[in-house]
Amino acid sequence: MQLLKDRIRKDGQVFPGNVLKVDSFLNHQMDIELFSEFGKEFKRRFEGEEINKILTIEASGIGIACIVAQSFGVPVVFAKKSQSKNIAGEVYSSKVQSYTHGRIYDIIVSKKFLGPEDKVLIIDDFMANGAAMDGLLEVIRESGAHVVGAGIVIEKGFQGGGERLRREGLRVESLAIVDRMDEKTGEIVFRDDE
Amino acid sequence: MQLLKDRIRKDGQVFPGNVLKVDSFLNHQMDIELFSEFGKEFKRRFEGEEINKILTIEASGIGIACIVAQSFGVPVVFAKKSQSKNIAGEVYSSKVQSYTHGRIYDIIVSKKFLGPEDKVLIIDDFMANGAAMDGLLEVIRESGAHVVGAGIVIEKGFQGGGERLRREGLRVESLAIVDRMDEKTGEIVFRDDE
Repeated sequence: MQLLKDRIRKDGQVFPGNVLKVDSFLNHQMDIELFSEFGKEFKRRFEGEEINKILTIEASGIGIACIVAQSFGVPVVFAKKSQSKNIAGEVYSSKVQSYTHGRIYDIIVSKKFLGPEDKVLIIDDFMANGAAMDGLLEVIRESGAHVVGAGIVIEKGFQGGGERLRREGLRVESLAIVDRMDEKTGEIVFRDDE
Repeated sequence: MQLLKDRIRKDGQVFPGNVLKVDSFLNHQMDIELFSEFGKEFKRRFEGEEINKILTIEASGIGIACIVAQSFGVPVVFAKKSQSKNIAGEVYSSKVQSYTHGRIYDIIVSKKFLGPEDKVLIIDDFMANGAAMDGLLEVIRESGAHVVGAGIVIEKGFQGGGERLRREGLRVESLAIVDRMDEKTGEIVFRDDE
């Protein structure tokens, strides 16, 4: 998506440790008009698919998922990150290893809001090694819902999560795939760049 | 807002400890069309006010704030809950005592996204004793921004936060104010009910 790539080049910052900072428009301050364009683009890419629910994960996926959901006319469910014990039987849960923070956390989704009747589109802001996605997919599997695919705003192609998940059969649509970043020059190379 | 009160009566559940569970449409599964109605109503109530930014707090405020922001045509900034040490000088921060979870957490907002030029509307899903609101107000004060007011979806009137903050001069607009709930009968009494 050219609009997004231009914006990443303009406002994104590359930091040591393969960190791409886009907090001025994506995941701290949020450009809602840009999010609407994401919604139209995901709608275009998943045209013809039956989708009745969007699933995301707190916190930075929520805003994007809500705006994108307007293009699909469906509700959003967000998986909660939980460090507390949960009452068995009431939630689906999965463990996620955070790449950014180096710790393991549980994600939970109430059984009330996901079930075999659901056709789910996953939406998230970033995909790196795909750990959060694995957690969401496990929750969906537990629930018996059908996963239609995943819509990702920025995929870090060099961290391999997207390739692995596509190989495993998941349809992953990323609006921008970063193949290389240089923290010294600030250069960002996207997958389909000339 | 009658639409919201009807929905709370229909889908809300009262639990011991003054817990009003509205997770089927507000803060776990999210009814985006309903959120759009919140946006129109807040826009109506704050008509004529100059607002250039919406501030909320993760996680459950984010979705509502993003949809409401469409009615105002402004970006959203969300305060992050942080348990980590933060580099002094880069963020505004404040401490919040959680009523629900009984612990103290830090909230932080990058100095890049809030400053004296900002006219801020705070949006959140719930207000009880107003602790999260105090934290957001402190962050706004630190930044030198002007706070226009707070738009709250559900105010628990019996926990006093709204009254205190209005007394302190904050304009608080709540779409539904719950004055009494009965965990035995499930009855919910709203402020302006007959």
